[in-house]
Amino acid sequence: METANPDAVHSDRVVPDRVPLEPVTPDLDAFKRAFRRHAAGVAIITTLAPDGRPVGFTATSLASLSAVPPLATFNMAKSASSWPAIVEAERVVIHMLGAKNRPVAEQMSGDQRYRFVGDHWHEGPHGLPIVDGVTTWMIGRIVERFEVHNNAVVVVQIEDGGAGEDDDALLYHERTYRIPGEPA
Amino acid sequence: METANPDAVHSDRVVPDRVPLEPVTPDLDAFKRAFRRHAAGVAIITTLAPDGRPVGFTATSLASLSAVPPLATFNMAKSASSWPAIVEAERVVIHMLGAKNRPVAEQMSGDQRYRFVGDHWHEGPHGLPIVDGVTTWMIGRIVERFEVHNNAVVVVQIEDGGAGEDDDALLYHERTYRIPGEPA
Repeated sequence: METANPDAVHSDRVVPDRVPLEPVTPDLDAFKRAFRRHAAGVAIITTLAPDGRPVGFTATSLASLSAVPPLATFNMAKSASSWPAIVEAERVVIHMLGAKNRPVAEQMSGDQRYRFVGDHWHEGPHGLPIVDGVTTWMIGRIVERFEVHNNAVVVVQIEDGGAGEDDDALLYHERTYRIPGEPA
Repeated sequence: METANPDAVHSDRVVPDRVPLEPVTPDLDAFKRAFRRHAAGVAIITTLAPDGRPVGFTATSLASLSAVPPLATFNMAKSASSWPAIVEAERVVIHMLGAKNRPVAEQMSGDQRYRFVGDHWHEGPHGLPIVDGVTTWMIGRIVERFEVHNNAVVVVQIEDGGAGEDDDALLYHERTYRIPGEPA
C-alpha cells in the first residue's frame, strides 16, 4: 500500500476519487443495477435455424477477444429463443448498430415472432439474415460455445464483413438508448 | 424474405435503413475499425499476483453473463502482463468506471510498473486491491478461464461489492474516453 496522498498531507482539500465505498449485498438488484450503470454498445446477432428460419436478438455483450485471428465473443442465456439455432449454427452475423438503428434494436429484442417481419433485412452470404443499414456487419464462424450454468459464451472467428453509412454509435445505458456524448 | 416495404410501394421516399453495404475484407484494420466504432463501458480488473503484488488492467470487454447466479465475463490476451496473476488468482475485483475515473483508466492501461503507484487504491476483502472512487466495485470468484488461441475469456461469480458516488458512465469509443450523450 502506498503512503498517504501528498496533496492531502499539505492541504485539506477534498480528493474527489477517495469516496468511501458502501458495501452492498451481491443480490440480484445490486448486480443488475451495476450493469445498468455500465454503458454498452448495441449489436444484433442473427443466424438461421435448422429449418431455415432467420433468428436473432439484440445483444449488449459483444466484445473483441483477439485481432489476430479476428475473434469476438457474445453472451446469451440458454433459455433465449435463439439458443437452439445458435447451438446448431455454423455461422452467425454480428451487426454493430448506429443511432438510426434504434428501431431495429427494439424490434430484435421484442417478441421473437415479429423480429424478421418487415423489410429491414436481406439474405447475405450462406443465406444468413443481414440487417440493413447497420454501421458494420461481420460474418463469424462459431468456434466455441462455452456453457456456464444456464448461459453460454459464444466465440466467433470473423470471416467476412461490410460497412454501412457512418453513424453515431448506439449505446444502451440505464435502460435507455443513447449516443456517445462529450469527451470525459 | 418479406415482400417489399409497403411504404416503398406507394412512395419513392428514401427508407434510411436500407443503405447498401460494401463488402470489406476481414483484415486486421477492418476488424479493429469495427470495434473502435463499437462503444464500450470501461472497467478495471485487479487481483493479487502470487507474490502479493497488486496487478490490474483497464478492460472494455466486461459483460454480464447471468444475473442468477451473478456471473460476468471479461476477455484478455494471455500475453497481457496481468495474465500470470489471473491464471493463479482465486478472485478478482471488477470496477465499473465513471467519468471522474478517466485518469485511473489511463494509468491502469499504461506501463504496468506504475499502475499501482499512488494513493488511488486500498486493500479490500481478501487483501485484493480496490480502486477508490469508482461507481461500483464487485469481488468475483473466478469460475472459468476459457482459453482460445492466445486469449482467454474469464468468467467470475460475484460474491460481494460496493457502490461509490454516482457519476456519468465512462465510455471508450473511437479511441476516446466519453460520457453517454443524448437519447438515440
